[in-house]
Amino acid sequence: MRVYADNAATTRMSEVAIKAMMPYMSEVYGNPSSLHSIGQEAKEHLDSARAIMAKNLGCEPFEIIFTSGGSEADNQAIVSAATIGARKNKKHIISTAFEHHAVLHTLKKLEKQGYEIELLDVHENGMVTAEQVKDAIREDTCLVTIMYANNEIGSVMPIKEIGAVCKEKGVLFHTDAVQAAGHIKIDVKEQNIDMLSLSAHKFHGPKGVGALYARRGIMLSNIIEGGAQERGKRAGTENIPAIMGMAAAFEDACNNIDAHTEKLLKMRDRLIEGLAKVPHSILNGDRESRLAGNVHFCFEGIEGEALLLLLDMHGVCASSGSACTSGSLDPSHVLMAIGRPHDIAHGSLRLSLSAENTEEEIDHILTVVPKVVAQLRNMSPVWRDLQEGRREYVIQ
Amino acid sequence: MRVYADNAATTRMSEVAIKAMMPYMSEVYGNPSSLHSIGQEAKEHLDSARAIMAKNLGCEPFEIIFTSGGSEADNQAIVSAATIGARKNKKHIISTAFEHHAVLHTLKKLEKQGYEIELLDVHENGMVTAEQVKDAIREDTCLVTIMYANNEIGSVMPIKEIGAVCKEKGVLFHTDAVQAAGHIKIDVKEQNIDMLSLSAHKFHGPKGVGALYARRGIMLSNIIEGGAQERGKRAGTENIPAIMGMAAAFEDACNNIDAHTEKLLKMRDRLIEGLAKVPHSILNGDRESRLAGNVHFCFEGIEGEALLLLLDMHGVCASSGSACTSGSLDPSHVLMAIGRPHDIAHGSLRLSLSAENTEEEIDHILTVVPKVVAQLRNMSPVWRDLQEGRREYVIQ
Repeated sequence: MRVYADNAATTRMSEVAIKAMMPYMSEVYGNPSSLHSIGQEAKEHLDSARAIMAKNLGCEPFEIIFTSGGSEADNQAIVSAATIGARKNKKHIISTAFEHHAVLHTLKKLEKQGYEIELLDVHENGMVTAEQVKDAIREDTCLVTIMYANNEIGSVMPIKEIGAVCKEKGVLFHTDAVQAAGHIKIDVKEQNIDMLSLSAHKFHGPKGVGALYARRGIMLSNIIEGGAQERGKRAGTENIPAIMGMAAAFEDACNNIDAHTEKLLKMRDRLIEGLAKVPHSILNGDRESRLAGNVHFCFEGIEGEALLLLLDMHGVCASSGSACTSGSLDPSHVLMAIGRPHDIAHGSLRLSLSAENTEEEIDHILTVVPKVVAQLRNMSPVWRDLQEGRREYVIQ
Repeated sequence: MRVYADNAATTRMSEVAIKAMMPYMSEVYGNPSSLHSIGQEAKEHLDSARAIMAKNLGCEPFEIIFTSGGSEADNQAIVSAATIGARKNKKHIISTAFEHHAVLHTLKKLEKQGYEIELLDVHENGMVTAEQVKDAIREDTCLVTIMYANNEIGSVMPIKEIGAVCKEKGVLFHTDAVQAAGHIKIDVKEQNIDMLSLSAHKFHGPKGVGALYARRGIMLSNIIEGGAQERGKRAGTENIPAIMGMAAAFEDACNNIDAHTEKLLKMRDRLIEGLAKVPHSILNGDRESRLAGNVHFCFEGIEGEALLLLLDMHGVCASSGSACTSGSLDPSHVLMAIGRPHDIAHGSLRLSLSAENTEEEIDHILTVVPKVVAQLRNMSPVWRDLQEGRREYVIQ
């Protein structure tokens, strides 16, 4: 049995998405900017994809810009808001310490350009409150950017409330919804969101494509300069096949949120309850306000990387945290943000499910993980020290 | 009969490319940054694609960065060179007046940041010489960026000679090879190229993917910040299916350059000779140093847009110039750069062939274009003025 439990890293494309892409590779292959019929046919489909994205986000089609993915959309949203802010001499930006690096590294760049970046503390349960945002907003705040759901520990922020605070204070609010889009019902108007980023390959769409929603009237800055595609805000020939695949996958995902959530919650909760029985283990992220497919634990006394490799040998594909930083030896900045000590942070495991997973696979994970954790602990000098009282447990 | 003669705008994906992409959508769908076997399998294929690109460009695999397309690659190359230059207080950049907007608009942005941009004049035949570059290079020049082949009029620059001048003077040389890659043999080392941009969908690969070659030792700046993909120089989950499709299409194109060129030259030259017989028409771009698939004419007394629409009705999909600026009413900046007057520039037609075109299709174009030009001239008040001597012909 091989269980793919790394859907937060990327998902398998759905049949729906592949089917939606295919005609645009070999038949309707025109450049939507071309005036002839093959180009104009492509353009019509591009417009239809934009309408589908808009409908499922609760916005207007012209408020959607297609990008090469979530990272580009995050970069563009933040740089745009910063540029707008600078014109009014507002250069204070509020975010959190556990954002994705597409956000944090962009903020770092802005900091070097003279912006003041304030990263809100994250509570131990992986949450940031609207109250915190309210207290942090100043006269010169130009942007609040807070993720919808954390990509490692799965906690889901009170986006609507944070948005309401921003709206009241007249500050732009962007949310990186890469982990939420297609998994949680989003209505940007109702949830007071000014800008939102999403990525298709996180909801069974193609890689290399994403979208940025930006409310009417927000002047976007270009990340990529060139041709006049996407209202002149994103240069480069539109990636029609991928855009069509994304729209189909997004509609499919949004239509099935309730059914998928119901299925996922059963599997997720079974995993959480089962893994909580492993001695000296701790769940990361809020127990309630949490992505339906996310399970994230720390196990004391072991190394996450060794855990992953052994799990893989037992047919379980999982992650220690974000795939984007898997090459790094530093402990996860997310786990640091919620106050986990280094030792504990290194022993982390993320299992991220999709509706394609089965109860049998959950059984398999529940058999394998405790066994592998025990096996690693047997070989671990740290664990021996803990067992023999030469070292104190962090997780009781 | 429907003839697609707009291959400079985009191409139909080849079977080879589609076949190469497919497994990475539904089978090897992992995130190459994931440590488990599904991720590592994807990573191996990513590495193999990079090796294929490198082999066909004459560089090392680590000198290739995958991007979302040619525009992004152009942006990144230019911004990187400018950043390197600024550190040495070198802020003079040499380019030409007829570059793609992905280059020109990026240069515009740099100009606002205090860089001095010098656009070389383009000769009437659509050429820029190494001599011109040599004369323009100054002590404070940090970059020469000159396209390999022009996207509208198809003229091919003396890249190797320009590169040699830059090398001698110690100035970085970037070439936008979006129209050349896969169509002309490129060897970046032999041709003295420091940085090169290409785009897959111009050689029957997928849309939404491209590559930037940057010689070892050139420190790239990020256009997209975030995860540590692509040596930390280009964030975002790698678009494996598209990258695999690009590598397959590029290898296929490079392997077939000689055969395709031979076929294309016959068709191209037949078109050029045939259309030159239309009275008061003129070929744009050099007759010899020219892309094998490019035919570009101006016809006096008509509007290019009307010409395209009528041609489309007769089953010929063509362009007046660049697809990226097709929405614009301004005359082509390329035709302005080679000194065509506004009136003439508006009556332009680009036919861009691929090896998929046939001699029968060329016959069809040669029948339709003169007929449609005559038809439009019959309705044109400008043409009447020309005929009746109230106005002088620009094209004899």
